[in-house]
Amino acid sequence: MPFWQQDLESMSQEQIQKLQLKKIQNQVSKLYKDNTFFKKKLDDIQVKPGDIKSLEDVKYIPFTYKEDLRNNYPTGLVCGNWDNVIRIHMTSGTTGVPVAMAYTKNDLDVWADCMARNFVAGGLHSGDIVQQAHGLGLFTGGLGFHYGLERVGAKVIPTGSGGTERQLRLMKEWGTTVFTGTPSYALYLAEIAMEKGIDPVKDLKLRLGFHGGEPCTDEMRRRINERLGYTARGGGMRRCYGLTEMGGPMSMDCHYATGIHLWADHYMVEVINPDTGEYTPPGEPGELVLSNLSFEAMPILRYRTGDRVIVDFSPCPCGRTHPRITNFLGRVDDMLLVSGTNVFPSQVENVLLQQSELSENWQLMVGDNKGLHTLRVEVEPMPGVIISEKYIKDLEGKLHDFLEIRCKVVIMPVGSLARFEGKAVRVVDERKKI
Amino acid sequence: MPFWQQDLESMSQEQIQKLQLKKIQNQVSKLYKDNTFFKKKLDDIQVKPGDIKSLEDVKYIPFTYKEDLRNNYPTGLVCGNWDNVIRIHMTSGTTGVPVAMAYTKNDLDVWADCMARNFVAGGLHSGDIVQQAHGLGLFTGGLGFHYGLERVGAKVIPTGSGGTERQLRLMKEWGTTVFTGTPSYALYLAEIAMEKGIDPVKDLKLRLGFHGGEPCTDEMRRRINERLGYTARGGGMRRCYGLTEMGGPMSMDCHYATGIHLWADHYMVEVINPDTGEYTPPGEPGELVLSNLSFEAMPILRYRTGDRVIVDFSPCPCGRTHPRITNFLGRVDDMLLVSGTNVFPSQVENVLLQQSELSENWQLMVGDNKGLHTLRVEVEPMPGVIISEKYIKDLEGKLHDFLEIRCKVVIMPVGSLARFEGKAVRVVDERKKI
Ligand SMILES: [Zn+2]
Ligand SMILES: [Zn+2]
Repeated sequence: MPFWQQDLESMSQEQIQKLQLKKIQNQVSKLYKDNTFFKKKLDDIQVKPGDIKSLEDVKYIPFTYKEDLRNNYPTGLVCGNWDNVIRIHMTSGTTGVPVAMAYTKNDLDVWADCMARNFVAGGLHSGDIVQQAHGLGLFTGGLGFHYGLERVGAKVIPTGSGGTERQLRLMKEWGTTVFTGTPSYALYLAEIAMEKGIDPVKDLKLRLGFHGGEPCTDEMRRRINERLGYTARGGGMRRCYGLTEMGGPMSMDCHYATGIHLWADHYMVEVINPDTGEYTPPGEPGELVLSNLSFEAMPILRYRTGDRVIVDFSPCPCGRTHPRITNFLGRVDDMLLVSGTNVFPSQVENVLLQQSELSENWQLMVGDNKGLHTLRVEVEPMPGVIISEKYIKDLEGKLHDFLEIRCKVVIMPVGSLARFEGKAVRVVDERKKI
Repeated sequence: MPFWQQDLESMSQEQIQKLQLKKIQNQVSKLYKDNTFFKKKLDDIQVKPGDIKSLEDVKYIPFTYKEDLRNNYPTGLVCGNWDNVIRIHMTSGTTGVPVAMAYTKNDLDVWADCMARNFVAGGLHSGDIVQQAHGLGLFTGGLGFHYGLERVGAKVIPTGSGGTERQLRLMKEWGTTVFTGTPSYALYLAEIAMEKGIDPVKDLKLRLGFHGGEPCTDEMRRRINERLGYTARGGGMRRCYGLTEMGGPMSMDCHYATGIHLWADHYMVEVINPDTGEYTPPGEPGELVLSNLSFEAMPILRYRTGDRVIVDFSPCPCGRTHPRITNFLGRVDDMLLVSGTNVFPSQVENVLLQQSELSENWQLMVGDNKGLHTLRVEVEPMPGVIISEKYIKDLEGKLHDFLEIRCKVVIMPVGSLARFEGKAVRVVDERKKI
């Protein structure tokens, strides 16, 4: 399989480290000169840009937290020439102040190249006809995918999300070979196809899918592959990685599916113990910390992603030499504290999607019964399947083993749980906020 | 005011004609070689590409009709190397087979440059912060505006349509200076702002608006300017022009507002008598016929737009030398045949929007009373205004004078008529289809 930028993607470790040092020194100098917030942070701990003499010294650069971006919204973290900014993206801000990112032309080019690397590593070529169904707008996902696909030279049909029957009609009319959208939307598309008498495996020409916007389990990816008759990339447990603070979606797995390729010439990767801030030993889990080495408008350094991962720094069999996230152990943000126990919704999904009797639609309700937290898992059987009381008890047992906390399984009528054309919302926390 | 591509925008007539001849000869040769549909059309009338020796010979090239695009959907009119196509746009196809357009990288560059010319001619500069609220997706409008704005180097906040309260919040937070969206959405935005206690004139920094997606009258443009405190471009009677068959939005008025600047180095302009197909005398109204001189993927030649216009081929005071649409007399598509009389919805709007007692929301219902066609115009008073019986009679009289057909005016409660975040749908035809 070809590369998008072979020289850069297969640099030696020595080359990567040399480039990273040069780039991070440049970012620190620029930020120190141009951004008062960053300058104050460095001044407070009496570090000067010149103190960063080797990659070991990067640990002297203070961490950046999501709160820093929120407190400096909208433009407090812009660095250098605001005049060169040509794009602004942001999160919805439904849970508070939005997180915004500003881009120069060069930043958009870096981003599009990273996405193009991911797509080519996953098997996309310029002959492909792509229906891009991540919503186009303020979120980074839609336009991030769009510009990357266009850069590869694939034929992009920019449908955006929704209009499922029309998506299916276009797939037939244009012989669409690649679909991009959230994993849950891919499954919804398969469901509607079957309802409309379209067999995606026989009637459509899809061969690849690239999925972002939300995590999904390996089992969910297996179902997507089976029902749409293609190979899903980015499906699986967080096999597409990105965050607005780093510019948007940036990393995906390659056709060897050995982990998410991070692009070390543009993003510096560190893995730390979230409690001490010290590096964890190689191969050990820890919190992912990222620094944007190439962006001009708003480079964020040492960003605490809140993602617990294992990173492999050895080369991939595909020939790419950059680090890979091989295990995604959950997000601190997604973690629920239920009667003193940590529960990751992904753990629940992992158990549920191994049940061939159940559809991939589910919901986790967290309740409060006089101070005692309760977990209720609502699931739907596959059409025509009858669920017995014994089956429910067994499933509750499995969930208990896995979560180390009791939860109640409730069988809902087929088709009654919410379907999502965008990012799926699986958790409803009904506990009173203190 | 500056130009985007001054040399090209201010070419002499002689230079334009020389360039046009070279380009149309090239398009005809390419299409004849690469596209079987076009070749057959030329062969049928025994014309060879070599027969086009001067611009006078362009009349030998057969017209292209909307039906040709529909009959050849999806890819029958693609010319040359399908491999170089990187984007596909299309109409909704709600009234039949969609009209699709395919683009190479170069085609997208031409399109973005045309849009950049329009924006710069209207006063946009790279310091502007732009909320782009045309829906991003399959339609040409959203991504057409987006790429043009980005090309100028303005700071694009790609909101897409909808989310009106959020649009207002972002305008305050970012100090947005330019708004782009449909004219009816601009007025809706003003309405919601007032409801939320925001005075756009005092509280926002908007200075320019670029409006596409639907026609609007001069009076509607005046209201937009007044209520949002900015200068609207593209408002007024079809002051933003474009169609999917030519690649999307392509032309707008400049700061002199003397008409819609067509870009003759990329689009050849002819004005014909729709019945005979012959040229109309200069300055006389006729049907606009356009040829795409620059597109590679799917160049459409001598397209019958169905738009009745007056074109001025003399230079504009702004220094741009390309032809301008100075009058837009209605669309054959929009024309309603009501009991044997031609009615253009724009005529109704022209009368209604001169009434300061009425809001800009209205609806035209066409009915059938035992074979007799009826026209009902539903209007809303401005808040607090009481409408008398005499006023209604007078308005019916004015409409009768203007339309040469009777219609009934019905006063609806304030806020009861549909508002549109995208393209406004003003006409409801309830007559039985034969
Ligand atoms: Zn790999
Ligand atoms: Zn002008």
